[in-house]
Amino acid sequence: MATDQLSMTFAALADPTRRAILARLVAGERSVTELAEPFNMSMPAVTKHLQVLERAGLIVRRREAQWRPCRIEAGPLKEVAAWTERYRRIWEARFDRLDSYLQEMKTNLKTKEKGHGGKQRGK
Amino acid sequence: MATDQLSMTFAALADPTRRAILARLVAGERSVTELAEPFNMSMPAVTKHLQVLERAGLIVRRREAQWRPCRIEAGPLKEVAAWTERYRRIWEARFDRLDSYLQEMKTNLKTKEKGHGGKQRGK
Repeated sequence: MATDQLSMTFAALADPTRRAILARLVAGERSVTELAEPFNMSMPAVTKHLQVLERAGLIVRRREAQWRPCRIEAGPLKEVAAWTERYRRIWEARFDRLDSYLQEMKTNLKTKEKGHGGKQRGK
Repeated sequence: MATDQLSMTFAALADPTRRAILARLVAGERSVTELAEPFNMSMPAVTKHLQVLERAGLIVRRREAQWRPCRIEAGPLKEVAAWTERYRRIWEARFDRLDSYLQEMKTNLKTKEKGHGGKQRGK
């Protein structure tokens, strides 16, 4: 398993439960108990997911007297966005190709329609 | 291991060699031999990486007479970008907090400087 920052971030995000935990943390800090609630999971299972997120730097756990609230850390997500951005022109180019194909089809249809019109007028 | 599309994409991206393969494919189609070249890897190892990318829909392999060229498919990367975009306000908020902290420090410094100036004038 790769241990560079970006690989660890991607590996941590490769799980729907961990992504759901991050989504919940957008609203603010949550305790482990609060995070475990909607998933119907054992505490050790949730703790394991939190450890993966923590190692990837996607969450930070604060030490309070009675609990250890979790907070989202957006730094690694910003890196993912920057990495993905390099490929934007690829999917935009694909869309452009589709667009010019549709434009071409439209032009062909119009030419055909004109052709039919000509015939009808010629009757 | 999760098998939803986004999890498969993230898992496929969680490896620097696979990301380097994608980066090379931005320039256009490549054969497996061409892709293996810069990595000093055995053909089976490269083939395994390509299979992971293919299953995640990140590459497509065409069938030609003598070779099977690989092409990048940007669809899943667009989904990653869309997913990451939801967290943009988190890292922008963090930047805003840093920015207002710096502004506050600047104001404090100016007030201090003014204080000193006053004392000097009073001498």
